Amino acid sequence: MSKIVTFGEIMLRLSTERHLRFSQAKFFAASYGGGEFNVAVSLANYGIPAEFVTRLPNNEIGACAIKEMRKYNVESKNIVYGGDRLGIYYLETGAGTRGSNVVYDRANSAMATIPKGSINWEEVLKDATWFHWSGITPAISESAALECLEALKVAHKLGITISSDLNYRSKLWNYGKEPDEVMPELLKYSNIILGDIDTAFFMLGKDKVNPNYQNEKTLPFLYDQLFKLCPNLETIATTLRYSVSASHQRIGGILYDGKSICSADIKEVTPVVDRVGSGDAFMGGLIYGLLNDSKNKQRALNFAVAACCLKHTISGDINLISLEEIEKFLSGNASGKVSR
Amino acid sequence: MSKIVTFGEIMLRLSTERHLRFSQAKFFAASYGGGEFNVAVSLANYGIPAEFVTRLPNNEIGACAIKEMRKYNVESKNIVYGGDRLGIYYLETGAGTRGSNVVYDRANSAMATIPKGSINWEEVLKDATWFHWSGITPAISESAALECLEALKVAHKLGITISSDLNYRSKLWNYGKEPDEVMPELLKYSNIILGDIDTAFFMLGKDKVNPNYQNEKTLPFLYDQLFKLCPNLETIATTLRYSVSASHQRIGGILYDGKSICSADIKEVTPVVDRVGSGDAFMGGLIYGLLNDSKNKQRALNFAVAACCLKHTISGDINLISLEEIEKFLSGNASGKVSR
Amino acid sequence: MSKIVTFGEIMLRLSTERHLRFSQAKFFAASYGGGEFNVAVSLANYGIPAEFVTRLPNNEIGACAIKEMRKYNVESKNIVYGGDRLGIYYLETGAGTRGSNVVYDRANSAMATIPKGSINWEEVLKDATWFHWSGITPAISESAALECLEALKVAHKLGITISSDLNYRSKLWNYGKEPDEVMPELLKYSNIILGDIDTAFFMLGKDKVNPNYQNEKTLPFLYDQLFKLCPNLETIATTLRYSVSASHQRIGGILYDGKSICSADIKEVTPVVDRVGSGDAFMGGLIYGLLNDSKNKQRALNFAVAACCLKHTISGDINLISLEEIEKFLSGNASGKVSR
Amino acid sequence: MSKIVTFGEIMLRLSTERHLRFSQAKFFAASYGGGEFNVAVSLANYGIPAEFVTRLPNNEIGACAIKEMRKYNVESKNIVYGGDRLGIYYLETGAGTRGSNVVYDRANSAMATIPKGSINWEEVLKDATWFHWSGITPAISESAALECLEALKVAHKLGITISSDLNYRSKLWNYGKEPDEVMPELLKYSNIILGDIDTAFFMLGKDKVNPNYQNEKTLPFLYDQLFKLCPNLETIATTLRYSVSASHQRIGGILYDGKSICSADIKEVTPVVDRVGSGDAFMGGLIYGLLNDSKNKQRALNFAVAACCLKHTISGDINLISLEEIEKFLSGNASGKVSR
Amino acid sequence: MSKIVTFGEIMLRLSTERHLRFSQAKFFAASYGGGEFNVAVSLANYGIPAEFVTRLPNNEIGACAIKEMRKYNVESKNIVYGGDRLGIYYLETGAGTRGSNVVYDRANSAMATIPKGSINWEEVLKDATWFHWSGITPAISESAALECLEALKVAHKLGITISSDLNYRSKLWNYGKEPDEVMPELLKYSNIILGDIDTAFFMLGKDKVNPNYQNEKTLPFLYDQLFKLCPNLETIATTLRYSVSASHQRIGGILYDGKSICSADIKEVTPVVDRVGSGDAFMGGLIYGLLNDSKNKQRALNFAVAACCLKHTISGDINLISLEEIEKFLSGNASGKVSR
Amino acid sequence: MSKIVTFGEIMLRLSTERHLRFSQAKFFAASYGGGEFNVAVSLANYGIPAEFVTRLPNNEIGACAIKEMRKYNVESKNIVYGGDRLGIYYLETGAGTRGSNVVYDRANSAMATIPKGSINWEEVLKDATWFHWSGITPAISESAALECLEALKVAHKLGITISSDLNYRSKLWNYGKEPDEVMPELLKYSNIILGDIDTAFFMLGKDKVNPNYQNEKTLPFLYDQLFKLCPNLETIATTLRYSVSASHQRIGGILYDGKSICSADIKEVTPVVDRVGSGDAFMGGLIYGLLNDSKNKQRALNFAVAACCLKHTISGDINLISLEEIEKFLSGNASGKVSR
Repeated sequence: MSKIVTFGEIMLRLSTERHLRFSQAKFFAASYGGGEFNVAVSLANYGIPAEFVTRLPNNEIGACAIKEMRKYNVESKNIVYGGDRLGIYYLETGAGTRGSNVVYDRANSAMATIPKGSINWEEVLKDATWFHWSGITPAISESAALECLEALKVAHKLGITISSDLNYRSKLWNYGKEPDEVMPELLKYSNIILGDIDTAFFMLGKDKVNPNYQNEKTLPFLYDQLFKLCPNLETIATTLRYSVSASHQRIGGILYDGKSICSADIKEVTPVVDRVGSGDAFMGGLIYGLLNDSKNKQRALNFAVAACCLKHTISGDINLISLEEIEKFLSGNASGKVSR
Repeated sequence: MSKIVTFGEIMLRLSTERHLRFSQAKFFAASYGGGEFNVAVSLANYGIPAEFVTRLPNNEIGACAIKEMRKYNVESKNIVYGGDRLGIYYLETGAGTRGSNVVYDRANSAMATIPKGSINWEEVLKDATWFHWSGITPAISESAALECLEALKVAHKLGITISSDLNYRSKLWNYGKEPDEVMPELLKYSNIILGDIDTAFFMLGKDKVNPNYQNEKTLPFLYDQLFKLCPNLETIATTLRYSVSASHQRIGGILYDGKSICSADIKEVTPVVDRVGSGDAFMGGLIYGLLNDSKNKQRALNFAVAACCLKHTISGDINLISLEEIEKFLSGNASGKVSR
Repeated sequence: MSKIVTFGEIMLRLSTERHLRFSQAKFFAASYGGGEFNVAVSLANYGIPAEFVTRLPNNEIGACAIKEMRKYNVESKNIVYGGDRLGIYYLETGAGTRGSNVVYDRANSAMATIPKGSINWEEVLKDATWFHWSGITPAISESAALECLEALKVAHKLGITISSDLNYRSKLWNYGKEPDEVMPELLKYSNIILGDIDTAFFMLGKDKVNPNYQNEKTLPFLYDQLFKLCPNLETIATTLRYSVSASHQRIGGILYDGKSICSADIKEVTPVVDRVGSGDAFMGGLIYGLLNDSKNKQRALNFAVAACCLKHTISGDINLISLEEIEKFLSGNASGKVSR
Repeated sequence: MSKIVTFGEIMLRLSTERHLRFSQAKFFAASYGGGEFNVAVSLANYGIPAEFVTRLPNNEIGACAIKEMRKYNVESKNIVYGGDRLGIYYLETGAGTRGSNVVYDRANSAMATIPKGSINWEEVLKDATWFHWSGITPAISESAALECLEALKVAHKLGITISSDLNYRSKLWNYGKEPDEVMPELLKYSNIILGDIDTAFFMLGKDKVNPNYQNEKTLPFLYDQLFKLCPNLETIATTLRYSVSASHQRIGGILYDGKSICSADIKEVTPVVDRVGSGDAFMGGLIYGLLNDSKNKQRALNFAVAACCLKHTISGDINLISLEEIEKFLSGNASGKVSR
Repeated sequence: MSKIVTFGEIMLRLSTERHLRFSQAKFFAASYGGGEFNVAVSLANYGIPAEFVTRLPNNEIGACAIKEMRKYNVESKNIVYGGDRLGIYYLETGAGTRGSNVVYDRANSAMATIPKGSINWEEVLKDATWFHWSGITPAISESAALECLEALKVAHKLGITISSDLNYRSKLWNYGKEPDEVMPELLKYSNIILGDIDTAFFMLGKDKVNPNYQNEKTLPFLYDQLFKLCPNLETIATTLRYSVSASHQRIGGILYDGKSICSADIKEVTPVVDRVGSGDAFMGGLIYGLLNDSKNKQRALNFAVAACCLKHTISGDINLISLEEIEKFLSGNASGKVSR
Repeated sequence: MSKIVTFGEIMLRLSTERHLRFSQAKFFAASYGGGEFNVAVSLANYGIPAEFVTRLPNNEIGACAIKEMRKYNVESKNIVYGGDRLGIYYLETGAGTRGSNVVYDRANSAMATIPKGSINWEEVLKDATWFHWSGITPAISESAALECLEALKVAHKLGITISSDLNYRSKLWNYGKEPDEVMPELLKYSNIILGDIDTAFFMLGKDKVNPNYQNEKTLPFLYDQLFKLCPNLETIATTLRYSVSASHQRIGGILYDGKSICSADIKEVTPVVDRVGSGDAFMGGLIYGLLNDSKNKQRALNFAVAACCLKHTISGDINLISLEEIEKFLSGNASGKVSR
C-alpha cells in the first residue's frame, strides 16, 4: 500500500493536569503534537503507511519527538535536522465555563527556520499516494511557506492527492505577510480542503459571507465559489462544532463534492478529556474514508465525525483510536459500556 | 452476629489513570478486586461480619491481596494457599463515547487451579448465616466449579441462605463446558438470584424472551418460570441500567419475590468515576437489605440501587460507602452538597 | 490605590485527589485557604492592593502559609506570630451523588488562641479603604471574636467600608456562646452583608422566615427588617445555589440596597472541579464590583456571580481568575473554547 | 500463642517526598505511625499476635489509622474512641548534610486527652504475655501518664513481661511535670528497658555520667546502678548509632542482663531511605528475640540490630521486614543482590 | 549495514517506585523488558540495525510492548502473534542492605507457548550478521527451546555469528528438563558466550571448579575446557561483580579468546538507580565492541564494562546510553559533572 | 536595612525526576531559576532585602516566574515586561557515573532581547547597598551586555558594592563577540569577583596559568595580577570542587583580599540531590558573610562553603536554606540527625 505524507511542525506540548492553572503546576505533562503529525498518527492507527516530514533540532528534545513518531508507527526517515529548538506550546486545560488556554512558544523553531530547499520532495513523494499540509506551516515563517509550496508543486506534478486543512491561527502570521498574499498560491493545488467557508474566503482574499450550515440550499452556491478559486478542488468539508462548555461539545460535519451536500448528525461529546487535535482527528478520518472508498462521501464524513468525537476522550494531541473503535461507534455502539 | 461468607476470585487490578490509553501509561494503579470479594467489602462496611474464601498464591502479590482484605475488615482466615499466580485484569477507564476496556489475564491463577476439596466447607460455614457466590467462579475452571458446588451443598445442608449473582462473562467459560451444563446444578440451591431474566434462561438452557422490565404485568409470568427451575428460589432481582455514555448511567432495579414486583426509580449517575463493581455494590446492598429486614423487599431494593449509584463515585472495584451515606442518599439527600 | 484588609484564619487544606476516599489516599494535596484569605486573593488577582491579617504559628508550616500569601500578592506584613499550630481541614472531594466531605481539625490553632489586643488595628487600617471579616472568626473562639470586634470598632471609627460574610458553620461555635450572643454586636458595623436572610435572622436572634428569593415583591420587606437591625447596612446580597449534584451546580445571586432588588441569571456550572471557596469568590467579586462602581449594583452582582461560577473550575480554595477572564464570561463568552 | 500488647499514640505522618522542603511540597505523603504502634507492626510481621491500644477520634481520619492497623495485622479491638483529633507530625526528609526535620502537631489529640480509666486493662491484658510502652506516652499529658501507670500495675499484677523504651523527646513534657517526677514510678515495673544510660539516669533523677559504650569494663557498674533503681529490671539494651550524615548511619547495639554485656558489630547503613522508626524496629526485634529464646541474649541483640538496619531501607514509620529477611541478613547475606 | 537479530521473551515489568515494598504501592511503574530485547535496544542505541523476534499476545498489552520496541528503534516485523498473555515480572527495588526482589509471573506467556516452527528463520536471518539468544529462552518451555535450536541451526548454516548469554535462573527450568539435557546441544553453535565458568560447566554437565578470576594463570586452562566442549567458541567473557550493597556495586570483567586473557579494571558504581538489565548492557556492549573491531578484544571488554556501569544509572531494564556517553566514560570522564 | 539588587535572567527549568532520561519522561518538573535570581533568593532567605531585575514576557509563563519570586520574598517591582518568551532549560539529573545534562533553549528570550535603556537604573539602585551580576548576562546578547554595563556604571557612581560571578558558559556567547571583548569593561567595576583564576584571565584576555589552589604561596602572586586588571577589586573567591561522581562532590573554597589567602576545609557532599545552583548558593553565602562582617573574610568564606554544601541537598536551582541551618552546619552539626 502506498504511503501518505504529511508535512508540518511537531511541538513539545507542556500541559497542566487536573485543570490546574499554570501557576499551580509543579509538573507539566510532556507530550508531542502538531496538526499534520496528528493526522499522520491517525492514519497509522488505521493501518495506513504514514510518514511525517519536518525539521527537528539535533538535540535530545528533538530525539524525544522522533521516538514518539516511531512509537506510533509514523515513518520519520525523511526528517531533516538543524536549527536550535523544538517549538513548544503550553496548555492549561479548562473545564466547564473556563476554556482551555494555549500559550505558544514556537518562534525560531527548527521548522520555522527551515532553509528553502532542505527537503528533496521528489525523493520523499516518489512512492506516496497522498500529501497533506495545513495553513499553520505557511503561517510560521516565509521559508516554511516556500518549502510547503515546493512540496505542493512536486506533489501536484506527481499526481498525488493533496489535502489541506485551513487551520487559521491569528496569533501566527507574524513574519510580514497576510494569509491572502500566501494561501491562494498554495491552495490552488488542493484536491480536498478542510475548513469553514469564511476562513477559506478570508485566506483567498474574499469577503465574509456568514454561511448558514443548516441551510443546505444556499451552501452549494457558496461552495461553488470556492471551487472556482481552487481549480483542483474536489471535496470540501467542515466540522460543525457547538461549544456548550469546555467540557461539553456538540460535533457534526458537512461535506460538498461539487455536486451535493452530505451532512452528519450532531453528536453529544461530554465530558471532554482533551479537545486539542480533534480537528486533526476529523481530517485523519476524512482522509481514511476517502482513501478507503472515495465514492462514499457520506461514509467518509461519518467516519471523520466519529473520529473527531472519540478524540475528545483521549489525552494529548494525537488520536489513539483504532479502526475497530470507530466502526463500533458508527454502528451505534457509543453508549460507553465496559468491554469485558 | 453471625457471618456472611463469599467465595470466588480476587484479582490484581491494573488500571490507567485519567482516562489514559494503555499505550500512554507509565504507571498502572494497583488495586485488588473481584465480584464476590467486592460483595464482602460492602457488607463489612455496613457492619456485617464478612468473610471471603478463595485460594491465593503464597507470594508477595498474594500477600498484598490479603492486606487489602484485612484493611477493609474482611475475614481471611479460611483462605487456602497454593498455585502460581494471582489473576490480573487490566482496565482502561473510558469517558463519554469511549467505553472502558478490560483485558483479562486470569487464566491459571491460584483460584482457577484450586484442587477439589481444598476447603473444609463444614468448618468454614458452621457459624455462617449467608453464603454468596457468582457465575464467575464456575466459569473460570472445572475445579473451581466443583469447589463451588461443594460449598453450595454444605451451605444448603446447613440451612444457610444462598445468594447468586449470575454474572455471565462470555470471555470466560473456556475450559470446555457451557454454562447450561454447569449452572443448573449450582443454581438450584439459590434462595436469591441477581441477574436479568435472559441471562438466567440462557444459563438454565432456555430460550431468550427479551423481557420488557417496564411491563410489570408480564414480568411475574417470566419470573415464575425461573422459580420453577430453581426450587429454592425466593427472590430474584435485576439492576436496570441505561448507559447514556461511559460517564453517564441511569440506574434502577426490579425485584420479584414470587408474589409481587417491586421497582426502584431510575437515578441519574453522572459523572461516573468508576463503574466496575457497581453490580457487586447492588448485590451487597440487596443482601444487607434482606438481612436487615427480610420482609421489606422494596426497602432492600431501594438500598441496593442507592449502593449501586454511590459506587459509581468510588475509584476501584470496592464500594467504600457507609451505611450513613446510603441512608442519606435514600432520604433524598443526593444533591452532593459539601458536608462541613 | 488604598488597600483592602481582610481578617480571619488561614488553614492547611489536605485533600484527596481524583475523588479518592480518605482511606484510599497515600497522598494529600496540600494547599492553604480560609474564607477571608480567599477574598483577599480574589482582590489581589483583580489588581486591588489586598492585605490579610491573622495569627500564625512560628514554625515551618506557618511559613508555608506566608509563602502562599506572597505568591498570590497578598500583603502579610501585619500578621502576628505565636501559638502552636496552623489549623487544618481535610477535604474529600465528592462527585455526582456523593457530596464532598470536610473534616475540621482547627481547634487550638494560632488564630483561635489569639490573645486579645494582639493586633494594632489603628496602624493596620490607617491606609485602608475597606475591611472584610466573616462569621467564622467569632465562631472559633472568644478571643478571636473580641479581636474582630476591636477591628470593627477601629474600622468604623476610621470610616472604612465594612463587609461581612455571615458564613454560619454549625460545627464551630463550641466555646460556649451562641451566634446571637455575639454577632449582633459585630454586625451592627457592617455596610455590606453577604448571606441569606434566615442565617442573618438566626444570628441576630430572630425567627426563620423561609424567604422565597424568586418573589421579588416580598423580599424588600424582609430585607428591610435586617436593615433596621444593622444601622450601617447599605447592601445585602446572597448567592442562590441549586445543587443538582456534587458535580453540577446552578448559580445565581440577589442583592438589595435598601431601595431595590437586583437579581442575576442562573448559570449552569458543570463539571465542578472544586466548589470550596466559591462563596468567597462571590464575596471578592462583589467587593470588587462595588469598589469599582458603587452605583452599578447590578453589574457588581453579575461580576460576583461570574466570579463564583468560574471559581468552580479552579482546584483549591482560592479563585485564580483574572479580571479579563471574568469580563470575557460577562460578555457571554463562557462556552469554553480553546484560546489560541 | 498469647499476644503482645503495646500502648501509646498513633499519628498521621505528613511527609514530603524526594527530599523536598515543606515550602516546595504540593503533596504530603500520608501514613500512620507512632513508637508503640510501630513495635506492634514489627511483631505482627514476625508472626507474633500483636495488639495496639490507644484512643482515637471517632472520625474519618481515625478510621484511616484503624485501617492501617488492620492491614498490617495488628489487633485493634480494645481501642477506645473519643476526643477531637488524630495527632499529626510533619516530616521533611533530609539528605547528606541536611538532617530530617520533624514538626509536631500532636497536642490535644484523642490520645493526649484520654480520660483516666478509659481502658479496662484487666480485660485487655488477660490473655497477654507481654506489655510494651514508651516514655512518649507519659510525656504527652498527665492523663496519658496515669492511664499508662494503671496499665503497668495491672500488667505487673498479672505477671506479664513489661518492656519500656525511654524515648525522651524534649519537645514534649509540656504539661507541667518533669520526667523525673513521673518516670521513676512507671519504670519500676519494667523488666526490659531500651535506652541509653544517661537518658535513664535523667529520667530517674540522677546525674549524667557520659558512659563510654566501647569500654565494656565500666559499663556493668553503670548498668548495675540502674538495676538498683528499677527492681524488676532484667535486661537493658541500647542502640549505638553514629550518624555520618542523614544518608549514612552506622548502627550497633549493646545489652546487659545483670550479669554480662553483649555487643553487636557496627553495620554500615547507606543510603538511608527513612530513619524514623528505626529505634522502634530495634525494640520490636529485641522483643522478638527475647520471646523466641530468652536465654540467647546475644542472638536477640543481633536480631534487634538487623531489624534496625533493615528499617532504614523502608519508607514510613513501620518496619515492613519479614523474619526471613532478617534471618538472611543475620546469615551474612546483606549484600543487596537481586532475589530472582 | 546488516542487522543483528535477538530472540527471546519481552515482559511487562511492574515495579514499585522509591524503594516501596509491594504492599505499600498504590501504583506500579509499567515498562517492558527482557534479556534479549534489552540487548537489541543497546545495539540500536549504538546505531546498529537491531531486530527482536518473539511471540506476543494479540491484545492491547502486547501492543504496548511493540510500541516500546518501535520507540527505541528495534525492528519488530518478524514477531509472531498468538497465545494468551504477555509475561510479567514484579520488581521491588531494594536499597542498601535490602536487595531488590523479583516475583515472576511469566508462565503460559505467548512466548512460552510458542508452537514449534512458528518463525521462518531462513527469512528472518537472511540479511543478518549476528544472532543473539540467552539461556532464559530454553528455560521457559520445551517449545521455546526447540524454536531456539531451530534458529541456531539456521544461523550456523548461514554463517552468522552467534552469541549466547548463559543467564541461568534456577526459578525457571520447570518443564521437566534440566539445563544439561538442553543447553549442550544449543551452546555448541555459539561463537561468543557470556557467563561465568561454573555456570557454563553446570549447563554442560560438568562439575563446579570455583574459578579464581584474579588468577590469570589458571584461567586459560579452565576456559580451554569450555572451548573443547563448544567447538565453535571463539570468545568467552564474564562480568565480575562485587555487591557491596543493593546501592553500591563494583563492576569489572574478564574475557578469553582462546589465546589470552583480557581484564577490565573494577569501577565503583554508587548509587545504583536500577541494576536489572546490567548484564544485558554488558552483552550489548561486548557485541558492539566485537562488531566494531573484532581484533581489539580489550577495547570490546572495556566498552562492555562501561556500558554495564552506566546502565546502573538508568531506570528500567533497557540501557538508554549513547555511544558518545560510553566514549566519554572510557576516556576517563566519569566524574559526573553537569554537561552544559 | 538597604537592599541588594541582582540583575540577570530567570528561566523555566524543566527537569526529569528520579534520574529518568528525557525520552522516558511523561512529566517535567517545572521550576524557575537563574544564577542572579538564585543569589537573590539566598539573600532573602537570610533576611536581607533582595530585589531581582530582569525582563519578562507579558504572558502566563512570565507570571509564573513572578509568583515564584514573590513566594520567596524577592522584590520584583522593577522588572520590565516585553519580548516573546521566557527562556527555558531542560535538565536531566544524572547519578553516579552519569553526569547531569542541560539542554538550553534560552535564545530570543525576553531578557536576551531587552532593548537598551529599558531599566531606569538610577531609580532602581537609589536605595541599594549592593549590586550583583554574572558573566551569563553579557553572554546572552549584546543588548543584555549593554544594559549590564549601564547598571554597573550607575552602581559604581552611587558607590554601591558590586559583585560579579564570572560564570563562563561556552555554549552561550553566540552573538558575535568574545568574552575578552566585553568582560574587561564590565569587570573593572567589580569589588568582589567569584571565579577561578584561569576563567578570569580568559575573560580579561590573558593566558591560562593552571593555578595550584593548594599552593598558598604562589596564589597571591596570581591573584595580584587580577587585582591590577580590575582596579576596584577588593576580594576574589573561588569554589574548589572535586567531582567524585554525579552523586558525590567534595567542596571547599579559597578567598584572597589583596593581602592574604583564606581557605575552607573540604566537605564531603553525598548524595547530591541537585547540584545546579550550588555556585550561586556559594555566591549568596559570600555576599551575606561580607555584608554581615566585612572584616571576617574567613567566616564569610566558611559561610559560603556551608551554603554551597547544603544547596546540594535541595531540589531546584534555589537554595532554600535558612540562616539557622547554616549556623548549625558551621558549628559542626552536619551529621544529619533528625530534628525533633
